Amino acid sequence: MGFDLGSAMMKLGVLSSSDDDLPHAITLFVALLCFSNLIGHLVQHNPWLNRPIICSLIGLLAGGVILLKSKGESSRLLEFNEELFFIYLLPPIIFNAGFQVKKKQFFRNFMTIVSFGAIGTLISFVVISLGALLLFKKLDVGFLDMKDYLALGAIFSATDSVCILQVLRQDETPLLHSLVFGEGVVNDATSIVLFNAIQRFDLSHVNSAIALKFIGNFTYLFVTSTCLGILVGLLSAYIIRKLYFGRHSTDREVALMALLAYLSYMMAELFYLSGILTVFFCGIVMSHYTWHNITENSRVTTKHLFATLSECSEDFIFVYVGMDALDIEKWSFVRSPWTSLGVSLVLFSLVLIGRAAFVFPISFLSNWAKKAQSDKVELKQQATIWWAGLMRGAVSVALAYNQFAKSGHTSRPGNAIMITSTITVVLFSTVVLGLVTKPLVRLLLPPLIRFNSQLSSEPSSPKSITLPLLVNGQDPPEAGGGITNIVRPASLHHPVHRYWRTFDDSYMRPVFGGRGFVPVVPSSPTETNDQPQ
Amino acid sequence: MGFDLGSAMMKLGVLSSSDDDLPHAITLFVALLCFSNLIGHLVQHNPWLNRPIICSLIGLLAGGVILLKSKGESSRLLEFNEELFFIYLLPPIIFNAGFQVKKKQFFRNFMTIVSFGAIGTLISFVVISLGALLLFKKLDVGFLDMKDYLALGAIFSATDSVCILQVLRQDETPLLHSLVFGEGVVNDATSIVLFNAIQRFDLSHVNSAIALKFIGNFTYLFVTSTCLGILVGLLSAYIIRKLYFGRHSTDREVALMALLAYLSYMMAELFYLSGILTVFFCGIVMSHYTWHNITENSRVTTKHLFATLSECSEDFIFVYVGMDALDIEKWSFVRSPWTSLGVSLVLFSLVLIGRAAFVFPISFLSNWAKKAQSDKVELKQQATIWWAGLMRGAVSVALAYNQFAKSGHTSRPGNAIMITSTITVVLFSTVVLGLVTKPLVRLLLPPLIRFNSQLSSEPSSPKSITLPLLVNGQDPPEAGGGITNIVRPASLHHPVHRYWRTFDDSYMRPVFGGRGFVPVVPSSPTETNDQPQ
Repeated sequence: MGFDLGSAMMKLGVLSSSDDDLPHAITLFVALLCFSNLIGHLVQHNPWLNRPIICSLIGLLAGGVILLKSKGESSRLLEFNEELFFIYLLPPIIFNAGFQVKKKQFFRNFMTIVSFGAIGTLISFVVISLGALLLFKKLDVGFLDMKDYLALGAIFSATDSVCILQVLRQDETPLLHSLVFGEGVVNDATSIVLFNAIQRFDLSHVNSAIALKFIGNFTYLFVTSTCLGILVGLLSAYIIRKLYFGRHSTDREVALMALLAYLSYMMAELFYLSGILTVFFCGIVMSHYTWHNITENSRVTTKHLFATLSECSEDFIFVYVGMDALDIEKWSFVRSPWTSLGVSLVLFSLVLIGRAAFVFPISFLSNWAKKAQSDKVELKQQATIWWAGLMRGAVSVALAYNQFAKSGHTSRPGNAIMITSTITVVLFSTVVLGLVTKPLVRLLLPPLIRFNSQLSSEPSSPKSITLPLLVNGQDPPEAGGGITNIVRPASLHHPVHRYWRTFDDSYMRPVFGGRGFVPVVPSSPTETNDQPQ
Repeated sequence: MGFDLGSAMMKLGVLSSSDDDLPHAITLFVALLCFSNLIGHLVQHNPWLNRPIICSLIGLLAGGVILLKSKGESSRLLEFNEELFFIYLLPPIIFNAGFQVKKKQFFRNFMTIVSFGAIGTLISFVVISLGALLLFKKLDVGFLDMKDYLALGAIFSATDSVCILQVLRQDETPLLHSLVFGEGVVNDATSIVLFNAIQRFDLSHVNSAIALKFIGNFTYLFVTSTCLGILVGLLSAYIIRKLYFGRHSTDREVALMALLAYLSYMMAELFYLSGILTVFFCGIVMSHYTWHNITENSRVTTKHLFATLSECSEDFIFVYVGMDALDIEKWSFVRSPWTSLGVSLVLFSLVLIGRAAFVFPISFLSNWAKKAQSDKVELKQQATIWWAGLMRGAVSVALAYNQFAKSGHTSRPGNAIMITSTITVVLFSTVVLGLVTKPLVRLLLPPLIRFNSQLSSEPSSPKSITLPLLVNGQDPPEAGGGITNIVRPASLHHPVHRYWRTFDDSYMRPVFGGRGFVPVVPSSPTETNDQPQ
């Protein structure tokens, strides 16, 4: 019968009839993720390293080993796949960001965030496209048409919200974190709208009507995506409040929340909206209402489940990008590696200039519009915002593949150079900028500022009322249900926020639940301690 | 610029360059899962319905709607894909089963379980293959060769462990649950070994040497798969104990456990072992050691995370199989639906006979070998075991597709009939048997027996020591770490178990941790209650 190899192949045939490499690739990636997790744990208190750096390096290393083992023929097991990225990896990361974001901080700076994300991205896009058009003529990069230059602008305007989350800690620098990360979410949407616009661009007809149409389209996309996310979030809160609550069906609650969140993303994509914006706002609404309607155990589970999923997706992306950097196939189409490095340098300089061209002006305008001293963005903070948003990540890689490697192959030298340069810029910004940003933040923002921010990021205790000048605006103590008599912190001086609170307490929370509006159903003490059985 | 449809198509292009239907399919399936979850919640106290039935019906309904909307051309969005099933859906289900199984009950009946799963499956295989060979000649089924008949035997010997979990509740009938479910796990491995053997079968050379080789191969597969699972489980316990414990890095712990469990499954598949057995034992070891080394919050999270993942996978499988049943393409190749129904009837009768042919004899032998009255399996319990294991599920469908629809298409009428008949048998057994089994268990096992079993399934309280005759053997109270002074229940009379306990306490737990061997690190009271931030 001979069970050794033949049967083995059969067995494998049962598993993967379509792609024989898939089980190998999955095994390798899962093993690398375990490894990244371990190393990440061991160096977690290192002042320089962070998880994106470690994962990229592990990916690079694994790519190198495969390259050596295959004798220089191949360095990857999985081709970079936009579908994998946009359908499976991105949604949990963005949802978790919305679920864990400090809501008050975020909404307080809403206008600044949208300006950064929308107008800023446009400015950066124009700077990078024009710069590439002017400078690439001097380098021997092969043929690129007008669309390619515009696409480059869009690709390199996409900041990396995943990496930002790693470098600026919400609990250390809440104002900066909310500004830079919020910008990243809006920026994702803008870049994708821009990119799609370019792919359909008719260069012979640029006029004001088209510009207006673009603005109209962006506004439509922004509003409808946000509304869809809010609607799905409210739906989850309503269903769980009406049907589930108090019955301790933890597994069903958790499944329903995760499924509905994912559904919101996929629905947005199907309706041609921005799934990123939708799932982000769905996360915000779920943490504001739904999370308070579920059992104690479900709260612990969802909080950690979403964070874990998000971490794993992030790690996966960085390992993936790192491994992709050594793809020998693409490099072999590049006429000279030095040209590619030159292109990378030019592109990265343009990214630096493009970002400076909007961070400082918009911060100036934003400061001018705000009255409270504590809300203003100081010059040092502006520099940090400029610096922290320089990182480019998987969104850029995915868009670059989409523009320059439609079929997955890159036989035109111009296209190959653009892809290798994108990966170089992404890896450089992730690893090198990632290494210096943490120490830089510590240098630029002196201990006092960091201390103040830190204070305000903690759930406001009575202390924060005695220190009203330091309060930067943060969420009230969000202890689980049961506190019906809520002490409003002193930061309630903002009128818009006060109106919202009144509306929330009078109309929204009675219907959708939320902190203080659901009876306390304590888990039985044994429930938490139970052995799984 | 016209952003409406064209841009929309572009947008979608970014998402799914390879398969335009994928986002639609995912959205539909996620929506159906939400819906199943809701309906499942609403009817959870219904004495007849269970989740597999609801999911199959929802799948059938959705298939019907798609069939009507496409005007009879197509009833599915996703083709049944073995890869999806074996790589993504099955591992979380089996892992969770191992993680939540009552270990003492399982190991107490280990020999009976292995006899049922290995010898029983072989008997059933012979009965079904011979029966089909004799009876199909009278039906006009198109050409089938000897291999096809043998494959049918393997396909219909695979019981559905997923469905069994739904019908027999661990807390109501622990002995039967552990027997039937344990059999299901071993049976899965046997069926797959059998099936692979058949695909390479040389019919001209059947002799005793081959039979011996088969037995040797099965033993090798069983032992190595089990050892791999145990090794990975112990590795996770050791890593977390040495590096993680006490640092409250909940998200990392949870990610590492999930990743290592999945890694064990994929490694087993790559080494041509039984991933099902491996991940099952990995789950058992993780719940025995690793689970006690992690923080309070991680315990709650893993318990519910694994259960939730498992539930979602199960629901997905049943929706999938239900939707697949109306696949018009396959039915159109079947010469007459009546022939297919006749074949289904024959196959199902053979399943009935094949199962009876081993359940009653093996139970008799097992009773004869056991001394304790409480361990013996009564006739009524035997009938329940026979009945509850009749359900056929997704493993059968996956194997049938592998044998009869290699390329996904089934133009030969004989092959088409086999696939439609398999789906008919699977749906019939899931829905109809599923409906009657719960009431039947109530009828066959009178209240006293059920009451006793119920008592013994609860974490043993001092009460269970006063009722030694009723104790059926169960896990000691597995409250989370902290109880260092463990009271051993009276059921410790089994010598093998006593030896194991001594060995475990002296050598294993000091190294790998486990209940009572890790210091208590209570979560701070606010941690559990915290708003996710």
